[in-house]
Amino acid sequence: MTLADSQSLKDLIARRRAGHSLAADFYRRQDIFEADMELIFGRHWIYVGVEPDVPEPGDVVVVDIGKTSVLIVRDDDMNIRAFHNVCRHRGARLVSTPNAVVGNLVCRYHSWTYGLDGKLLFADHMGEDFDKSCRGLKPVHLRSIAGLLFICLAEEPPKDIEAMAEALTPYLAVHDLPNCKIVKSTDLIEHGNWKLTMENNRECYHCGANHPELTVPLFAYGFGFSPKTLDEGEREQAARYQALVCDSHARWEGAGAASREVEHLADRVTAFRAERLPLDQHGESQTLDSKVASRKLLGQINDPAMGGLSVWTQPNSWHHFMSDHVVTFSVIPVSPTETLLRTRWLVHKDAVEGVDYDLENLTQVWLATNQQDADLVEITQAGVESPAYEPGPYSVFTEGLVEKFCDWYLGRLSAGLATDLAEAA
Amino acid sequence: MTLADSQSLKDLIARRRAGHSLAADFYRRQDIFEADMELIFGRHWIYVGVEPDVPEPGDVVVVDIGKTSVLIVRDDDMNIRAFHNVCRHRGARLVSTPNAVVGNLVCRYHSWTYGLDGKLLFADHMGEDFDKSCRGLKPVHLRSIAGLLFICLAEEPPKDIEAMAEALTPYLAVHDLPNCKIVKSTDLIEHGNWKLTMENNRECYHCGANHPELTVPLFAYGFGFSPKTLDEGEREQAARYQALVCDSHARWEGAGAASREVEHLADRVTAFRAERLPLDQHGESQTLDSKVASRKLLGQINDPAMGGLSVWTQPNSWHHFMSDHVVTFSVIPVSPTETLLRTRWLVHKDAVEGVDYDLENLTQVWLATNQQDADLVEITQAGVESPAYEPGPYSVFTEGLVEKFCDWYLGRLSAGLATDLAEAA
Amino acid sequence: MTLADSQSLKDLIARRRAGHSLAADFYRRQDIFEADMELIFGRHWIYVGVEPDVPEPGDVVVVDIGKTSVLIVRDDDMNIRAFHNVCRHRGARLVSTPNAVVGNLVCRYHSWTYGLDGKLLFADHMGEDFDKSCRGLKPVHLRSIAGLLFICLAEEPPKDIEAMAEALTPYLAVHDLPNCKIVKSTDLIEHGNWKLTMENNRECYHCGANHPELTVPLFAYGFGFSPKTLDEGEREQAARYQALVCDSHARWEGAGAASREVEHLADRVTAFRAERLPLDQHGESQTLDSKVASRKLLGQINDPAMGGLSVWTQPNSWHHFMSDHVVTFSVIPVSPTETLLRTRWLVHKDAVEGVDYDLENLTQVWLATNQQDADLVEITQAGVESPAYEPGPYSVFTEGLVEKFCDWYLGRLSAGLATDLAEAA
Repeated sequence: MTLADSQSLKDLIARRRAGHSLAADFYRRQDIFEADMELIFGRHWIYVGVEPDVPEPGDVVVVDIGKTSVLIVRDDDMNIRAFHNVCRHRGARLVSTPNAVVGNLVCRYHSWTYGLDGKLLFADHMGEDFDKSCRGLKPVHLRSIAGLLFICLAEEPPKDIEAMAEALTPYLAVHDLPNCKIVKSTDLIEHGNWKLTMENNRECYHCGANHPELTVPLFAYGFGFSPKTLDEGEREQAARYQALVCDSHARWEGAGAASREVEHLADRVTAFRAERLPLDQHGESQTLDSKVASRKLLGQINDPAMGGLSVWTQPNSWHHFMSDHVVTFSVIPVSPTETLLRTRWLVHKDAVEGVDYDLENLTQVWLATNQQDADLVEITQAGVESPAYEPGPYSVFTEGLVEKFCDWYLGRLSAGLATDLAEAA
Repeated sequence: MTLADSQSLKDLIARRRAGHSLAADFYRRQDIFEADMELIFGRHWIYVGVEPDVPEPGDVVVVDIGKTSVLIVRDDDMNIRAFHNVCRHRGARLVSTPNAVVGNLVCRYHSWTYGLDGKLLFADHMGEDFDKSCRGLKPVHLRSIAGLLFICLAEEPPKDIEAMAEALTPYLAVHDLPNCKIVKSTDLIEHGNWKLTMENNRECYHCGANHPELTVPLFAYGFGFSPKTLDEGEREQAARYQALVCDSHARWEGAGAASREVEHLADRVTAFRAERLPLDQHGESQTLDSKVASRKLLGQINDPAMGGLSVWTQPNSWHHFMSDHVVTFSVIPVSPTETLLRTRWLVHKDAVEGVDYDLENLTQVWLATNQQDADLVEITQAGVESPAYEPGPYSVFTEGLVEKFCDWYLGRLSAGLATDLAEAA
Repeated sequence: MTLADSQSLKDLIARRRAGHSLAADFYRRQDIFEADMELIFGRHWIYVGVEPDVPEPGDVVVVDIGKTSVLIVRDDDMNIRAFHNVCRHRGARLVSTPNAVVGNLVCRYHSWTYGLDGKLLFADHMGEDFDKSCRGLKPVHLRSIAGLLFICLAEEPPKDIEAMAEALTPYLAVHDLPNCKIVKSTDLIEHGNWKLTMENNRECYHCGANHPELTVPLFAYGFGFSPKTLDEGEREQAARYQALVCDSHARWEGAGAASREVEHLADRVTAFRAERLPLDQHGESQTLDSKVASRKLLGQINDPAMGGLSVWTQPNSWHHFMSDHVVTFSVIPVSPTETLLRTRWLVHKDAVEGVDYDLENLTQVWLATNQQDADLVEITQAGVESPAYEPGPYSVFTEGLVEKFCDWYLGRLSAGLATDLAEAA
């Protein structure tokens, strides 16, 4: 962006009113979308998938972030690598399908051929002086945290990915994600800015009125409430829920599964939060009957009633890990008013469909919830585009994580602008 | 728009050649479209519908003007009100369907609830310090003129709406629009700039070659002609038509229905024209047999041969009132090259379909005519986008009202730019 | 474009690395697309069709180049003329279908009527002072070279069209294009910048891996190779092919058909190349069995084994002339990332379908090849849009004409910018 645009964006950030939703420009201006892509999605660790996306050597998945297309590849030594999906000859996209299984990476155009390690192996008619060694595929930073794959498009990625890895691994390890398999994957285009998708995910104030399926296994008191408006019976229920949370945390942590809240959503470059919470009814899984959807439990888990471990990262993901299955969500901006939500459901790799799990039962809660959220994002996008929109107040009881997301976002945007202005000076 | 853009637009206005169509930029430039939305549609009275759009308490219609979405609501006291369709919490659109029937206006997202008077009645989890009284829906100015609904998005709307109301009421009252019902409504997207839609409406030079249905009930001499090219027979016909007009005006005005031309298309901020003209053949209605389409005449009308009262307003409407039915047209820009034409057909609220009127007979003339006009607008848009286009001459005999529309438009655009530049200084 | 944009584009041109593909901006920036339309397509001779597009008086074809719509018309004296497709009254497009057969050119809107020579013949209601003589259709420069139609939108077209006409006519004349008929025409939208379409056409390095149909009648050694990588058997084949080319040229030129390479792709404003090359197998035509597809040979040709005369022009065409049929290709940019490829197949006007030729046999090679090329253009566009793309090296053995196309393009762009800057100064 130009210096003038940068200054205008800095002013807009400075005018933000704490505790209120963002100014409309953040949700609709093309230049701010481009700043988001460059300063947020171009310089932070982005959640893009799971190790089971590429279980075998030669497996490839393509991840597109804006105009940048990235190949995630499992090489012959079982390492997972990431490369830019661009031939070094005339720039053709090497893989133009979402997935592929390959021996080498061969460009269709003129048959330039790269190994799974990115090296250029073959290029015809280029003459004797041609040096193949400097024409390998351009690498992209990739990091797996207990099976969750993050990439960073910047040359120098934020270093505190290590702190996130260290903090999250004790929560995730018990679910043994690398030994899961993907049994369902959906791509949903939401008609709203990516930040509305994220804000929607950061609160459950809207759940009661909008998510009849999801609220079956969730406790009503798990996501904040205004304490003074509770009557005596409600106060008693809330206290009982709080005691259950304490007992459950002690029990699960005793069994080796980190569970208590860890939260760095607004004080870290690589921001995250995790907490394992009890589920209602049978307490086993986020399903319509709150029982496990897959009889084959994950990793070494014996107890189906492990509640739900929720993991949030910024800028772009959330995840729910239960004893029997995992649902994992990746958010990728498409335009100022369109956002891709990619959802994957995973079970133990040895679980058998029709025997151990029923796919409809496994997926119906989040298939329904995603669509309901997409509708909410769409009406919010439509509303904030009106000149009559002005930022409204967040509930301190139920929308605190929305506020933290906004704070993190504006802070990271400011940091990016400051870096760019310093380099320009 | 920026000061530089404003200056460029002022220069373009200054270079306009009188008596000629507008420069191509007015029909295609994105920044001029935005100026149109802000300075014309954002600051003038816009025709959006009729009282019968919301006949009962709780009836709601949504009108979108650019990014601004407006709710037209009938409240419990039978008042018609207009509000911005934006929740004061996080901005969600309250009503996302074209119509609704509601008790209160409830936001789907977090259940914030507003009365039909716009007051915020309920908002959960907002804590004790939250002041509901300053979070009501934002009102929009609304004015009914004998049942025609106009809104103005500006904080201070043009005051001469009163003069238009006073002038038009004597023409309209006899048709008793508030006691009509809508029996057909169509939304047609024309692939041209909104000004081409308006210019097309402002002349009938094109009618003979393009509107075989509409020209059945219309007199050929009613819309201008070049007198010197008439032969003796034609001159006689023209004179006979002129005498019929005089006689008809006297007869209708004697019966209490204002009929003679009143015209303020280029000398008022809130611009309009009205005239009641005789129809050809049976002289009753704009139908294929020129007879009334509905046996139940409007209001207190006894004489089916009331001709056609045509009402034009600027920037965006025209209307045809007959003894038996009303056809009313609202023009809303969508993009520099797309325009919404919303057409409503109304009959007496007590008329019964199949008994008093046949819907196909009632609607076929204007359904056909609208489509024919849309085609003309589309080929004109395509043509004026060519670099080879240059403004061509209007016929002084048949395109005088097109010229007045252009004069009004450029004058109002200039006035808006001047106001903005004065405020910026 | 603004002076600042012009300067930025000049800088970009200056930074080009010789022997490498273009910087990504040339394939994707909206302002460079507009510069292409203005400075390349607005000021050079553009190939748009063939005389058999308008075989009879009153035949009209419409050619759209960007926003400019042009009518190609055969008049009553059998002359071919070109006019802007814009009515001089209010700008309506006169012909809105791809083809028409007319007596006069009548505007649908208000019946203004033009002769096939462009003169305004009739305009109603315009009054006595109206001067029809200055309201004729605006002409467009048109030139036929042995039946190939080129237009130029500039006021002063490049004069060296004469040199191209003189050079190409001896190659083309024998095929007698004016006495051919079009038997198939296709419009294919390629999802890539027009320069990728042209670059793809300028080399056959990609043919082996991508065009199984086209490579049947083509010799493998006809389009460049790296000599040092050939083994002894391959070297022998290459030498045998070279001898065949020499013999064929002598034989065809003896029969009056110019055949040896003539090439001015990078040293002329109106740039072109032509060469007649032997075909493989039966050597007669670009068909799946390499035999003629039409038994009725073109013009006075007796020998079916005339090989393939390929003609290339810049910015936008290529053509293949065989003894029995012609395939001719016109490239028209649609947007920075979309390009229209219009392909026409022609045979002798007296050839009879089902008797002299089978349409599927005639067209299948290039129908397949076009789609394959469109796919390659699309993956290249996707790739060059990535921030990770950087210009890669061309093969000196197989991509020399691609380099010449790029050199010509950048040179002509520079010349256009220099002219504009000089005029602005």
